[in-house]
Amino acid sequence: MPTSVKIFDTTLRDGTQGEGISLSVEDKIKIARKLDELGVHYIEGGWPGSNSKDIEFFERTRTMTFKNAKITAFGSTRRKDSKACDDINLNRLVDSGVQVATIFGKSWDFHVTTAIQTTLEENLNMIYDSVQFLKSKGLEVIYDAEHFFDGYKNNAEYALQTISKAQDAGADWIVLCDTNGGSLPGEIAQIVGAVKAHVSTPVGIHAHNDCELAVANSLAAVQAGAGQVQGTINGYGERCGNANLSSVIPNLQLKLGYSVLSDEQLKSLTSVSRYISEIANMHMPINQPFVGNAAFAHKGGIHVSAILKDASTYEHIKPELVGNKQRVLVSELAGQSNVLVKAQELNLDFDRDPQKSKEIIEKIKEMEHQGYQFEGADATLELILREAFEGLEEIFTLESFKMLVEKTANHAVVSEAIVKVKVHGETIYTAAEGNGPVNALDNALRKALIQYYPDIKNIHLSDYKVRVLDEKDATAGKVRVLMETTDFSSTWNTLGVSSNIIEASWYALVDSLRYALLGRTRIEREDKDQLEQLGVVNH
Amino acid sequence: MPTSVKIFDTTLRDGTQGEGISLSVEDKIKIARKLDELGVHYIEGGWPGSNSKDIEFFERTRTMTFKNAKITAFGSTRRKDSKACDDINLNRLVDSGVQVATIFGKSWDFHVTTAIQTTLEENLNMIYDSVQFLKSKGLEVIYDAEHFFDGYKNNAEYALQTISKAQDAGADWIVLCDTNGGSLPGEIAQIVGAVKAHVSTPVGIHAHNDCELAVANSLAAVQAGAGQVQGTINGYGERCGNANLSSVIPNLQLKLGYSVLSDEQLKSLTSVSRYISEIANMHMPINQPFVGNAAFAHKGGIHVSAILKDASTYEHIKPELVGNKQRVLVSELAGQSNVLVKAQELNLDFDRDPQKSKEIIEKIKEMEHQGYQFEGADATLELILREAFEGLEEIFTLESFKMLVEKTANHAVVSEAIVKVKVHGETIYTAAEGNGPVNALDNALRKALIQYYPDIKNIHLSDYKVRVLDEKDATAGKVRVLMETTDFSSTWNTLGVSSNIIEASWYALVDSLRYALLGRTRIEREDKDQLEQLGVVNH
Repeated sequence: MPTSVKIFDTTLRDGTQGEGISLSVEDKIKIARKLDELGVHYIEGGWPGSNSKDIEFFERTRTMTFKNAKITAFGSTRRKDSKACDDINLNRLVDSGVQVATIFGKSWDFHVTTAIQTTLEENLNMIYDSVQFLKSKGLEVIYDAEHFFDGYKNNAEYALQTISKAQDAGADWIVLCDTNGGSLPGEIAQIVGAVKAHVSTPVGIHAHNDCELAVANSLAAVQAGAGQVQGTINGYGERCGNANLSSVIPNLQLKLGYSVLSDEQLKSLTSVSRYISEIANMHMPINQPFVGNAAFAHKGGIHVSAILKDASTYEHIKPELVGNKQRVLVSELAGQSNVLVKAQELNLDFDRDPQKSKEIIEKIKEMEHQGYQFEGADATLELILREAFEGLEEIFTLESFKMLVEKTANHAVVSEAIVKVKVHGETIYTAAEGNGPVNALDNALRKALIQYYPDIKNIHLSDYKVRVLDEKDATAGKVRVLMETTDFSSTWNTLGVSSNIIEASWYALVDSLRYALLGRTRIEREDKDQLEQLGVVNH
Repeated sequence: MPTSVKIFDTTLRDGTQGEGISLSVEDKIKIARKLDELGVHYIEGGWPGSNSKDIEFFERTRTMTFKNAKITAFGSTRRKDSKACDDINLNRLVDSGVQVATIFGKSWDFHVTTAIQTTLEENLNMIYDSVQFLKSKGLEVIYDAEHFFDGYKNNAEYALQTISKAQDAGADWIVLCDTNGGSLPGEIAQIVGAVKAHVSTPVGIHAHNDCELAVANSLAAVQAGAGQVQGTINGYGERCGNANLSSVIPNLQLKLGYSVLSDEQLKSLTSVSRYISEIANMHMPINQPFVGNAAFAHKGGIHVSAILKDASTYEHIKPELVGNKQRVLVSELAGQSNVLVKAQELNLDFDRDPQKSKEIIEKIKEMEHQGYQFEGADATLELILREAFEGLEEIFTLESFKMLVEKTANHAVVSEAIVKVKVHGETIYTAAEGNGPVNALDNALRKALIQYYPDIKNIHLSDYKVRVLDEKDATAGKVRVLMETTDFSSTWNTLGVSSNIIEASWYALVDSLRYALLGRTRIEREDKDQLEQLGVVNH
């Protein structure tokens, strides 16, 4: 049984089959660099037989140096009733210049006859010929047995014959794919065990998440003897996605004791996962295991008071092991211990000034009474605490804003904002349009501030939520606006409450900019190198 | 070994511990009704000892009738060194009027000494006394053994003693909780097996998703003999969430053959999951297994051509079994079933006019593509269908509106709206202020309409929700406004989508009034007596 596991990342190939994901060649190069830093062993870059974008990717990566990963190109076995050496797809794999080729073939008799409509015998020849051809060109060959589990359940003997053919032709890996994602961990373990008894070639697993079991299935396969896991960062992929490597890796290494990455590499998991979600322009769910913003966030008062006594009471691992961190959410349910923890996080000493501490807690209680809810808005709470303890400069003062929305029959609606603010003693008066009122306000305010704070251009709103607080008279009641803002290195949440949605949005918007700009010194100090690498910091 | 599994839903209690989730009492009532329709066996409504909102929930549900579910209230064992009969929390459970109480107690020796800081012996007494007290009041008692798996791994003998105490005191269920979500399926199976050998009381499982294994762990527990699964719809819950019942249920029923819900109930799974995500104002990931919009979406060309030959080539179950539908992304072939159901409800005969039916379905598909989602907005869907089949008069036509929000330093924000509409051939020009922009628009529009439609004064907005859509290109930057409106006899929901929040609100507002006024004949016919009694109808 293997004690180490190789990670095969297919974010750039299978991951891009996910709805809403589309990556440019440049995006793919950036992601490949990050994956290499993380320490994955294989990076599947694309399918050179299917499109020119992928061909360009392989052209560019051929001259790049990767520290940890081998780049691999994807393709299929040769077409039926033809020769491998004449097959365009297989030749494109060779031409792509990679050292590792990954090809898939059919394991499920039903698919052979229904989907590609050939004989079972010819399918075996297609597998053998294709693997042999690629081996004859000196490539490492990973054979992906598509639908292996469904095939095995339907006709075990034939499924095993297909992978024997790949082995006979010299495949370096045989990867069993649960292509439809319908298998359960018990089945996976049993079938991987049967395969291990049948072939001597190293075996891998490729799972999909249609039953929300892709991570469990990957672990079950490894425990049954698989030495390679294929998956994607954040679980991107067709339908419900592929096995999420951001969860598979820490489970294998921290829970099951397999050797996968170095400890240092594992600590980059959170930042790599978030970086890739930014590049892919996919919202990362805050509750994503291990790497999500809420993965180690504590809300309930009981949990929080226990956490203060010993973090392991409510944390299954130390968040630092995967580069994440503990957060304590402040909410009405929780009393004061959460505020105390937040202050501790910020190194603000509550004990030293009990009078000030009392005032702040009163202020926060009063704001909660008015409808503020800080559990989702760390940044606003941090600004309040830092302002009280350290005194924070204002980035500007508001003189006035006007926001106009106008709709005329048969014309597109128009949103305009006029902002008058004082920055560093100067009064600035700007106007801007926007896709909607908040966007117009945001544009006008940025226009006023950008000459003083050029970093604003790297910040964008990434989520916006509105909640009506008084359910009895909805639009006459108060609204709470929760805004999420992102730059390349982090994400923060701010809050505004008002009976007016525009005013509430304004408060959240101002806090989001204040947080970014007043925290900028800290970001520069800690992450300047990284940000410069990304081309984000321009001084 | 059980062949059927009871579902214990804690969306309304543990689910609300999730970051960003906050439910009003009204939201909770709506969700409870839906859960009952789905057919879950237990609905945990809240913690009456912790806040007045939960107390109100139990007051209101006490007089409601549930077809399938028992309502249960949550609490903890008594405080240390006190009597169960004097415990405020336990008495609140009894006072809440539920027939089922769910209480948690400590299983992990480390927690007993570190978190609640008492002796191992006193903790055993706390469990025994609390369960016995609730049983003496005639309640069914579900005992949640918090941190059971961590406790068992640390000190198996003590962990087993704690649940023996619950059994001795008469608990009806012993539910083993993986509170920190750190356990793996193999451990879960082994420990549940050991527990089954130790106690005769039925056993349940309560898993958290910190390792992305909550669904797998729930299944492993059931396969080892657990007869109850606790979880939440869509997996809401603290940190990475609870076991996602939207995946657990179909896996148990369709994959493992356990009896959980009726086939009909299972078919409502997708709509219930989406409804609850709307009420909770939580974005549903499109790739969510079983119920997500992309769960049966096919993008790759190879997959699509195989799908056309036989859907089972790339689908692990028939999507209809869980009320979801196949989607082929290259050419949107959205299902039509909910539209057909709605048309049937309204006695609109789709079959009689196939051309018109086709046009309507095209229109609805296009609107869905633009971000409309009719699951939460029956009234808007009904207006579209009635308009197409019956032709509906316009209550007015818009010429223009203007909406201005103005804020000046140190002054209250002001919202004004100007509306120009044509009603019964006359142009009417009104202006009004409001507490916020939507309220100002609402006021100005009502002012224009009230002389023609005096019933408007009996209608008011009762809820207003905003969701930013980011999942697909067509919806990038768009917002969806969901509005709930109430008169004395009923409540209806309308929808507006636009890149401009004010325009989206306008659409929802207009539909809410149209629905009320165009349904007025029906209401008068059916409910005139009742409305007159209430003094609502003035003719």
